Amino acid sequence: VPQLRKDPILARRVIIATQRAKRPSHFGSRGNADPATSCPFCENNEDMTPPEILAYRPSGSSAQQAGWTLRVVPNKFPAVTREEDFAPYTEGMYQYASSVGAHEVIIETPRHETNMAALGEGEVAGVLSAYRERVLALKEDRRFRSVLIFKNHGPEAGATIEHTHSQLIALPIVPVNVSEELKGARHHYETYERCVYCDLVRHEASTKTRLVSEHDAFVVLCPFAPRFPFETWILPKKHSAYFEHISQREIVDLAATLRETLGLLNRTLREPPLNYVIHSMPLHEAQTAHYHWHIEIMPKLTQIAGFELGTGFYINPLPPERATALLRAHMI
Amino acid sequence: VPQLRKDPILARRVIIATQRAKRPSHFGSRGNADPATSCPFCENNEDMTPPEILAYRPSGSSAQQAGWTLRVVPNKFPAVTREEDFAPYTEGMYQYASSVGAHEVIIETPRHETNMAALGEGEVAGVLSAYRERVLALKEDRRFRSVLIFKNHGPEAGATIEHTHSQLIALPIVPVNVSEELKGARHHYETYERCVYCDLVRHEASTKTRLVSEHDAFVVLCPFAPRFPFETWILPKKHSAYFEHISQREIVDLAATLRETLGLLNRTLREPPLNYVIHSMPLHEAQTAHYHWHIEIMPKLTQIAGFELGTGFYINPLPPERATALLRAHMI
Repeated sequence: VPQLRKDPILARRVIIATQRAKRPSHFGSRGNADPATSCPFCENNEDMTPPEILAYRPSGSSAQQAGWTLRVVPNKFPAVTREEDFAPYTEGMYQYASSVGAHEVIIETPRHETNMAALGEGEVAGVLSAYRERVLALKEDRRFRSVLIFKNHGPEAGATIEHTHSQLIALPIVPVNVSEELKGARHHYETYERCVYCDLVRHEASTKTRLVSEHDAFVVLCPFAPRFPFETWILPKKHSAYFEHISQREIVDLAATLRETLGLLNRTLREPPLNYVIHSMPLHEAQTAHYHWHIEIMPKLTQIAGFELGTGFYINPLPPERATALLRAHMI
Repeated sequence: VPQLRKDPILARRVIIATQRAKRPSHFGSRGNADPATSCPFCENNEDMTPPEILAYRPSGSSAQQAGWTLRVVPNKFPAVTREEDFAPYTEGMYQYASSVGAHEVIIETPRHETNMAALGEGEVAGVLSAYRERVLALKEDRRFRSVLIFKNHGPEAGATIEHTHSQLIALPIVPVNVSEELKGARHHYETYERCVYCDLVRHEASTKTRLVSEHDAFVVLCPFAPRFPFETWILPKKHSAYFEHISQREIVDLAATLRETLGLLNRTLREPPLNYVIHSMPLHEAQTAHYHWHIEIMPKLTQIAGFELGTGFYINPLPPERATALLRAHMI
């Protein structure tokens, strides 16, 4: 059973998940394995994953069979499991809990694509719809207080499977990074009576030095204080705290925006490994005026090293104004 | 000029240091370069570094010449520079400052050793003495509020030079990770009137399930909630807030402890890439009863990925009790 352990000094928690040590690596095209027989996310290999939670497939086709365009399955090597309850324990001065939660994998296409940018706009829109649908479903389970949606692309960014996919983890607590962000946003709101992200969108859209692109409902920008070279954020122009409240029309625009942005990064950096994370409000909050959901995309070009681990600060050799110019130069 | 930029929402700061993009990689033995002519940290290549700040060398030998056993030099590609003042600026809603500071490199030996464990105990003691000496000297400059001492070993852990070395960065502010740790320790002290690290040392030394080794003045343990597999901490048994107050006798014991611990990790994990960070009190604090300096050693075996970046939580497949048993089994 995975354990959620609390650091005795910090708000930091660690999930001790021994299951995950058993993960095999599925980077077929870097070795000799044939994806058609060895990739657990390819069509016709449905029996290599646990039974699907959600699938987009034509009516008439059966679960766990070919024919789907997108599948969501439980992570086979989960960091948290839904069967457990959140039961707290102590060991002397320490606290831990059985780590109830959900850990799901969104398989973005039946084809063996190794880069999300290779998907069509309709496929990317399907991925975003699946994110929304799963968050709304998990929200019904009142044990969960937050859901994190993220992508690890490439082994350097922590992926063990090359077939393009994303992940989702639901947790019974609000993670420290999320609560710190909420606290900072609330502080700005209490000071200025405005959402800090709305301010930021307005500022960047008018000064333009860090504005990568502007779409109907979204802006793409390099943030003022990026941790990593080419860190890029996508924000909705309209104030909205919950990602899962996104409309179908916005999903279509976000799909175009995300696909274009990943393409820009691929052309500028030759298909870099990367992570993205959707930052959204914890599940059941009443006050929503101060927070604004967004996506943070982080190419993995440098290593987090002693300085970052010790300080929580980051050293970044590339000013975001320069990153913006380089990305813009690769716009088609 | 490097800039210290503040995130508009979080306590996180980022140093934008364009200089650092120019760093060449010096992993000679993985390529074909001969360290004798290409390694900037080898004896006889003193002119490849900026002039030394400190050197241990026999009387009669001259600065920037061979004969030394240890050198401290300014980082040639610094993240912060001592010439600047800490001048704050604003750009619209954003804040930044010129990033005054010191960024120094401790060259641990004149020989081309690529692993600190290959140094003799006397050499490691010299490295620790140099750390102490430099912190005490930088403490005289009242612009600095904290000094971070750390090691990046191996390219996967962020090193660009293989010749064994450590680094030190002095900053005009207290980094968020340091202030969070102080806050947690103060909370424990206010609740129990005891130092949390003293409690932790007592608990681990008596239960022994996470105790790797015990020396005269130090204990080595795997922490209860480790972020990374084989994360290992070294703590002084006696309460002490400031690393730089270490005695000569303690330095000798710490050198033996650190060398043995790195050797254990090397034998257990085949010379893993790793980072270590010395956690010590900010420079000029009056209250010291609640804080306790220590070293955190973090082998780099897994990647920080989307989940960690999004939550600030960590997924670790290896329980520290198991890591402890594996390390102990490699004790000579």
